Amino acid sequence: MNNFDKVSAGTQARVELHDLLNLTGAEVSINLLPAGASVPFVHSHRLNEEIYAILDGEGKAIIDGSSVVLKAGDWLRISPSAKRQFFASEKHSVKYICIQVKANSLEGYTMTDAVV
Amino acid sequence: MNNFDKVSAGTQARVELHDLLNLTGAEVSINLLPAGASVPFVHSHRLNEEIYAILDGEGKAIIDGSSVVLKAGDWLRISPSAKRQFFASEKHSVKYICIQVKANSLEGYTMTDAVV
Repeated sequence: MNNFDKVSAGTQARVELHDLLNLTGAEVSINLLPAGASVPFVHSHRLNEEIYAILDGEGKAIIDGSSVVLKAGDWLRISPSAKRQFFASEKHSVKYICIQVKANSLEGYTMTDAVV
Repeated sequence: MNNFDKVSAGTQARVELHDLLNLTGAEVSINLLPAGASVPFVHSHRLNEEIYAILDGEGKAIIDGSSVVLKAGDWLRISPSAKRQFFASEKHSVKYICIQVKANSLEGYTMTDAVV
């Protein structure tokens, strides 16, 4: 495997980076829900923590029955077992990143993992 | 721990999300380098794969001696051992996300980890 890979994300409604970047510690997807649309199912995870970043627009998530308003600049962590569903607002699309990582997999980070 | 946490990223030059979101599988930072600036050191990692997303602006990375031009929409995976340094361009700042995850930690993902 190369020491690095680079890709330019396109403008599709969903881009999955795992295979494009040869990721081994995460899956990352870039998602666009048009105004009024939603992910058409509720889901949870077996092992994976999810981290969401709202890049643009407005929407909401319903997480274990709690409604969470989302706007650009918001970040979420969701535990594996939580039941979640994502919605764009009625008037605005929402563009977001979803990062899947195995819960409790991180050991050191930043200064406790870096070699400077 | 709550089933989810939410935070709104501010406008600081660097925001670290690990403690704000109680992350257990990743560290995520949001970074802004002003025009002409660089991260002031070269670094590699012991265990962590890094994933970078360029959110805005222009810059470059030097990875094991290779110069990689970066613009909004670009994504990078960098292996733990690769020596890396990030730079804004001379005329434009660069805003980017850095995701640290333990290399080879991901098991299933998306449909092989989801419960629908």
